[in-house]
Amino acid sequence: MIGVDWGTSSLRAYRMTEAGQIIARASAPSGILQVAAGDFPNVLRHVVGDWLADGESKIMLSGMVGSRQGWIEAPYLPCPADPAAIGAALTRIPFDGADVLLVPGLSDRDEAGTPEVMRGEETQLIGALDQIGESGLVCLPGSHSKWARIEQGQIASFRTYFSGEAFAALRSGTILGRMMDDAPHDAGAFGRGVARANDGGHMLHHLFGVRSLALFGELGSGQTASYLSGLLIGHEIRAALQIAGTVHLIGATALCALYAQAIGLCGGHASLVDEDAAARGLARIDQARSVA
Amino acid sequence: MIGVDWGTSSLRAYRMTEAGQIIARASAPSGILQVAAGDFPNVLRHVVGDWLADGESKIMLSGMVGSRQGWIEAPYLPCPADPAAIGAALTRIPFDGADVLLVPGLSDRDEAGTPEVMRGEETQLIGALDQIGESGLVCLPGSHSKWARIEQGQIASFRTYFSGEAFAALRSGTILGRMMDDAPHDAGAFGRGVARANDGGHMLHHLFGVRSLALFGELGSGQTASYLSGLLIGHEIRAALQIAGTVHLIGATALCALYAQAIGLCGGHASLVDEDAAARGLARIDQARSVA
Repeated sequence: MIGVDWGTSSLRAYRMTEAGQIIARASAPSGILQVAAGDFPNVLRHVVGDWLADGESKIMLSGMVGSRQGWIEAPYLPCPADPAAIGAALTRIPFDGADVLLVPGLSDRDEAGTPEVMRGEETQLIGALDQIGESGLVCLPGSHSKWARIEQGQIASFRTYFSGEAFAALRSGTILGRMMDDAPHDAGAFGRGVARANDGGHMLHHLFGVRSLALFGELGSGQTASYLSGLLIGHEIRAALQIAGTVHLIGATALCALYAQAIGLCGGHASLVDEDAAARGLARIDQARSVA
Repeated sequence: MIGVDWGTSSLRAYRMTEAGQIIARASAPSGILQVAAGDFPNVLRHVVGDWLADGESKIMLSGMVGSRQGWIEAPYLPCPADPAAIGAALTRIPFDGADVLLVPGLSDRDEAGTPEVMRGEETQLIGALDQIGESGLVCLPGSHSKWARIEQGQIASFRTYFSGEAFAALRSGTILGRMMDDAPHDAGAFGRGVARANDGGHMLHHLFGVRSLALFGELGSGQTASYLSGLLIGHEIRAALQIAGTVHLIGATALCALYAQAIGLCGGHASLVDEDAAARGLARIDQARSVA
């Protein structure tokens, strides 16, 4: 079978056995924002055509490819959700030469009734279930970080934090960015930012402190970006990690390393899931579907 | 005497009696960012020259004109500070035809030891002391909102919140702005944002909710900017208004009206200070200096 994790900015494809063992990989910078409407079949064929010619006939897709800006909009499946429920909610996409099946995104409501959505992360979570076990807390860091709770082998609930995109906007669009050099990551300054997030003050007050520390020479221009990053990631972790314990991290290696440091500083313990979680998740959803 | 409140984006000048009664007003769009280095004396003479020719000989300045980017950098005076202490810390600026005296900014340290700074707001606070009384909580909303505590007729301490500048950056630099029309202010949506800030969740989570509410059609594109504004102002008030009570508001009328609504929704009571607080503050600092 073929699995494709198709996101906003890139696409990663896997050729796998039915059991989920990866035989070959391919990738392309053809995220959905780079693909013109109507061109999705051509992009897919360009990436996995050789595998189809070699006999594959089933393609499972996950990620933003199922959003309104993607190939076909797939409905959201509400939490709690397990591999069988997700496998029973696939959208079939007409495609010449293979069965193409699209994994739904998940939705949830927070305590105040505000909607939550994810697309792609549900498949990574399913792929990480073996490592997580029957219950656990999982963080998928990014522009919109997701924190999911696994209970009884299901994705029970999740919450999103706007940390990554807020960091980018504060860095590029405020006076804080004018005090930052393009310096390499400074682990000490990052740690100071995380500690600041833990002092009990509000983030809006802490943000002004980035400026005043720089103004008073207590934060160097090469440290300011790392400090701001630590401040935002620290606030996210402080809010999401309500009971100190293990956090399973799924995502890009460098970002997960930052989160692991910050989780440690917040009294938790980070456990890294490897980067093939999406591939394993697609295989597992397919298996659950076949069994049902 | 002449008083000038000279900020980042504009300048407001007052001709006053020694007792602080305003006789005439002038203003110019010549904020310090619009004035070239070395051109400050000319701009001042252009605005108040007629009053000097008519016999005035003393000019008191407050605001960002005393910052590193201004005319002359005045040192910060640490809190607590009263009119006499501020009056004893003026910087004299050489100027042909008048005594020009610059009011210092104030500094403070928050509970974690992080620096706090203000320039201009200290003069507005001094000008509002008669209305506030011996003790009270004062908010000066803006890009960097200041919350000051008055105790025994002194500016005892203050804290800054980055709300205004964060709003602008989130609106212009994130996906949230792409879901906003240039609609008129929507008081209902603003109130929903304030209520959201009071639900106990973290601001980084609430920011993603702006997107998800819009995505699910639970917030219209004409409501999103007002909701985001209420969310940020609500978070600021929730953090700063630790004990519900009266908040004295000093600032632009429209912004103060928003804060007054939000303070009410957060269980407090707003009391508006008129816009001439800076002029009265300059006169009062001058009186305190003359007495000492």
